[in-house]
Amino acid sequence: MLEFGGEALVLTHDMLVEGVHFLPGQDPADIAWKLVATNMSDLAAKGAEPLAVLLGYSLGQNDARFVAGLKEALDAHEVVLLGGDTVRSPGPQTLGLTAIGRATHRPVPSRGGAKVGDALWITGPVGAAMLGLEAFKAGTGDSLAYRRPKALLGEGMVLAPHVSAMMDVSDGLLLDAARMARASCVTFAIDSPAVPLACPEDRCGEALRWGDDYQLLFTAPPQCVPPISAFRIGEARVANDSPIQLDGARLSEADGLGYQH
Amino acid sequence: MLEFGGEALVLTHDMLVEGVHFLPGQDPADIAWKLVATNMSDLAAKGAEPLAVLLGYSLGQNDARFVAGLKEALDAHEVVLLGGDTVRSPGPQTLGLTAIGRATHRPVPSRGGAKVGDALWITGPVGAAMLGLEAFKAGTGDSLAYRRPKALLGEGMVLAPHVSAMMDVSDGLLLDAARMARASCVTFAIDSPAVPLACPEDRCGEALRWGDDYQLLFTAPPQCVPPISAFRIGEARVANDSPIQLDGARLSEADGLGYQH
Repeated sequence: MLEFGGEALVLTHDMLVEGVHFLPGQDPADIAWKLVATNMSDLAAKGAEPLAVLLGYSLGQNDARFVAGLKEALDAHEVVLLGGDTVRSPGPQTLGLTAIGRATHRPVPSRGGAKVGDALWITGPVGAAMLGLEAFKAGTGDSLAYRRPKALLGEGMVLAPHVSAMMDVSDGLLLDAARMARASCVTFAIDSPAVPLACPEDRCGEALRWGDDYQLLFTAPPQCVPPISAFRIGEARVANDSPIQLDGARLSEADGLGYQH
Repeated sequence: MLEFGGEALVLTHDMLVEGVHFLPGQDPADIAWKLVATNMSDLAAKGAEPLAVLLGYSLGQNDARFVAGLKEALDAHEVVLLGGDTVRSPGPQTLGLTAIGRATHRPVPSRGGAKVGDALWITGPVGAAMLGLEAFKAGTGDSLAYRRPKALLGEGMVLAPHVSAMMDVSDGLLLDAARMARASCVTFAIDSPAVPLACPEDRCGEALRWGDDYQLLFTAPPQCVPPISAFRIGEARVANDSPIQLDGARLSEADGLGYQH
């Protein structure tokens, strides 16, 4: 965050590496989309309105296809490409995107603001990206949720004035909730049946640990009714050794809460 | 450039790839320095005051040494690290830096503003980085000019109100001058004996084509005396087929004017 001209600028930078964050054979248009969406999701979590992006691009197998996907993603998120740098690399393709946004509410939501007694909410179901990846690998069904996640920019801006803490779920609900708990010095008691699922119920445990859904996770005072559809999944309690208490069971990062990288 | 809060933000993003922009065995502290300096030099050419940087970093052999060099470079250019992303990559190390600055003068100088009759100036000698690289490879003498170039931020801000066009010389004086000529629709007549050299005179031809010196190249109306020390090396003439006329000889990009990448 950067104070400038009486406003707060929110800046994010995310990287994607071939073979690490995406598969060598994947459609470059989908990769471009994901690069934009992950950065836009970071802005969404801050309640920021996107202004522009800068691209760091190492040339790949099909640059025209990447550019086409980039254009689609920028249009879908209503943001413009301002510039950047292009390089030739002998190694795996490495992409970086910087996104610049304007904070629409002060203070800018952070992951460190949850208070004991606050309710914990999520904007929508988890598990969709997991099913999407499976469909993608199998070449069956709808893989859009995995290939083309959409950042919840509008939701983030609407929520910002109401939340005590907010972040996007990119590495798994439990892991990201644990990070919010640590940053806020609380423990989250989470009620798994209350978490909305996009997958069969018997895969709940996986869905709670799967990333890439880009829902917004937020806390608000207990009496607050969020101005948009959201699901109350737990509450903030006095911190104990574990950041998460799932259906009464204490969990910490060592228990494998999500995608560690 | 981005209009924001009544001001103009200048944003740049440059990448460095191991094996392409730096050698695998090079001191990570020097690489960090160069990454910062190249981006700061882009801001200098816009007369911008640096506000902050974001780093995209793929882990390397000696990350602590990189961080130490980064800190030195940020301190030397009086700018702060705001955030970024760190990734593991199986390939060559790939680094990206985004720099954000505030334009100190409007209109923000560009490479497209040179007018016929304007004088062409450079802030200092070329050839120092060339000698520095040779000293570095030979393990003799002073390689600082190559390893630790300093962006001319103060000079850029002082010059901005006086110039009709400005850019930094990163890929070679002749090549960058050709780019300015193309963008401004003029031809630059350059007088090579007037170009200050940091190397022996018999290497003038090389020094005019060597990058990495990060001097500022600018044009100004013929009667203008720049407020800082600078060297008048030519003038803008009505455009012909060649962007550069060096000591009367017409040259274009095909003649090998600098470092093409």
